[in-house]
Amino acid sequence: MPAQHEPRRAKLAKLLQERDLGAALVTDLVNVRYLTGFTGSNGAVLVHADARASFVSDGRYTDQAAAECPDVERHTDRELAATLLAHAELPRGTRIGAETHALSVDDYAALAALVDEHGLGVESLRRAVEDLRVVKDDTEIAALTEACAISTRALEGLLDGPLAGRTETEIARDLEWRMYEHGAEAVGFDTIVASGPHSAIPHHHPTDRVVERGDLLKIDFGARYAGYHADCTRTVAIGRAADWQREIYAAVRAAQQAGLDTLVAGNAIADADTIPREVLDEAGYLEAFTTGIGHGVGLVIHEDPFIRKTTAGTLLPRTPITMEPGIYLPGRGGVRIEDTLVVEDGAPTILTTYTKELQEIG
Amino acid sequence: MPAQHEPRRAKLAKLLQERDLGAALVTDLVNVRYLTGFTGSNGAVLVHADARASFVSDGRYTDQAAAECPDVERHTDRELAATLLAHAELPRGTRIGAETHALSVDDYAALAALVDEHGLGVESLRRAVEDLRVVKDDTEIAALTEACAISTRALEGLLDGPLAGRTETEIARDLEWRMYEHGAEAVGFDTIVASGPHSAIPHHHPTDRVVERGDLLKIDFGARYAGYHADCTRTVAIGRAADWQREIYAAVRAAQQAGLDTLVAGNAIADADTIPREVLDEAGYLEAFTTGIGHGVGLVIHEDPFIRKTTAGTLLPRTPITMEPGIYLPGRGGVRIEDTLVVEDGAPTILTTYTKELQEIG
Repeated sequence: MPAQHEPRRAKLAKLLQERDLGAALVTDLVNVRYLTGFTGSNGAVLVHADARASFVSDGRYTDQAAAECPDVERHTDRELAATLLAHAELPRGTRIGAETHALSVDDYAALAALVDEHGLGVESLRRAVEDLRVVKDDTEIAALTEACAISTRALEGLLDGPLAGRTETEIARDLEWRMYEHGAEAVGFDTIVASGPHSAIPHHHPTDRVVERGDLLKIDFGARYAGYHADCTRTVAIGRAADWQREIYAAVRAAQQAGLDTLVAGNAIADADTIPREVLDEAGYLEAFTTGIGHGVGLVIHEDPFIRKTTAGTLLPRTPITMEPGIYLPGRGGVRIEDTLVVEDGAPTILTTYTKELQEIG
Repeated sequence: MPAQHEPRRAKLAKLLQERDLGAALVTDLVNVRYLTGFTGSNGAVLVHADARASFVSDGRYTDQAAAECPDVERHTDRELAATLLAHAELPRGTRIGAETHALSVDDYAALAALVDEHGLGVESLRRAVEDLRVVKDDTEIAALTEACAISTRALEGLLDGPLAGRTETEIARDLEWRMYEHGAEAVGFDTIVASGPHSAIPHHHPTDRVVERGDLLKIDFGARYAGYHADCTRTVAIGRAADWQREIYAAVRAAQQAGLDTLVAGNAIADADTIPREVLDEAGYLEAFTTGIGHGVGLVIHEDPFIRKTTAGTLLPRTPITMEPGIYLPGRGGVRIEDTLVVEDGAPTILTTYTKELQEIG
């Protein structure tokens, strides 16, 4: 069964020991899934410093929890924290960690009262589980690799056919359908299909605009597989590319390659922001790049680490991340090229393998 | 342009006056959308007691915010609360309301420090905006009506064809594709297609199980349109229905009708839970009904009011809500019948109009 969850809880337990916390009450549902395998919409897990774990969800999920997290003690009750604390048998005076970045003020106030009833203390767990989630294990890398393979196959199929004369919405639905056909469990996020002047809008929602020759067509999409998200952008020319289109495409491609070259374990995360921006700056297009350049990706489409010049720290091996510079020229068009890749000790492993040569498609 | 947002803010402003609050800082993104029209993934709005409003989002959304919320003062900055407070010009000593049910402990601590810097005070706004959202305006009812019409048309198309021999997953994808064809902007939630013994699992995820004669087939699905969610369940027999299938279908249908009959403005919300349960009890199946019986529906698929025997208060006209009793017999099969409807002064308006006669489909 889901053998990957126990080592994750063991890592958290080690952190708890280091911080003199008796247990962590994990309530963020993505973190609950990461630590237990539970995929429902209501649940919590208490991980003890000795790595024991107990889980609770409501009656809708009793059977699902038994199937998804067979290796933890399970309870069924609407009162999640109260149930876990009642069964925890923590010595009075024990301090527990709570996810203050994800728990609402009202829920935390209720928790603090409960903790007090049991003679316990509570403090912030901080982003301990999110920090663990940055470096992926084999199960996660396999799921992400499959999500990216599905996405690549879907894009290959779409771009094999003609595009001119179809609406953005039709193209988006076609691509999503292909992802399902290739095994996606879901479309990972709202598909962006942005043609002509719309391609200059970084996060455009598909419309009934008909794609025509002379357009740039920007497609940002990704499949979800076993909970993990692919994130890929390609921009193609519809018909013969104009000189200005070739120029901005070449500039974005050079910047993207410069960014990929920085994504090596041990390098400063901030360099992955500044170095590709220098390439855009030299080409005269830095001001036309208005979005973030990359982000971690996994159970959540945008997760730690975020690539910003203000991000502290260095890259760790087995960290999936995106690199996605762009140039957006309002009213004319834009280009973005984005890969999902895994940081390694050497060159990164690119998971979204569709060609980055400029394609001219009728 | 989006004229419906100003009256909503005016209602909130009136509440602020009644509670002696100078302004409400609204950070929950659904509530931000409700009050401004903004559909992006990062933003906040400050609504003053005199109904002025100022909005902030980051650089990704500057153009989108201009298009979606032209009638409010707008700012672009990553620091949402700091930017709104800096521009608010609230007199020292003014108290503002914050959404403590939706704001994390860490974000609230940062807000409290900011509020202090400006010489202001902060307290819980409570669920003031959620309370306003219970009763829908014309724009909302129109969007929900369209979402339900799309869903009904999609189901009609699906159930027109044969089902035996197809997998649950194929049927789910087919239904979703039909929703898009009929104009859905998205599939509103994970489609449930549950056949044979799976139909006894209240929230089943579609599998590769092939649907066969003798099955009950339970389909719980809905389209999203302009942000609003349809929610509909129908259960059909594959081939000729067995006597036990007819019996539980009839019991659920009677309970559902009894529930619908209670959904009249002025009635106690709790009655909509207890009365249909009495029908199931008389039929001898109360223990086989293990899920919630209904919930409000709108910008969120499950929202206030939730129908529970413990829910206080009475039903208000123009409140969209679901009624969805079921009988689940583990290992054998189950039936759920669910409508989305709008509470009125008289009989409710049923928006999901597909027949509730038991269909036998090959």
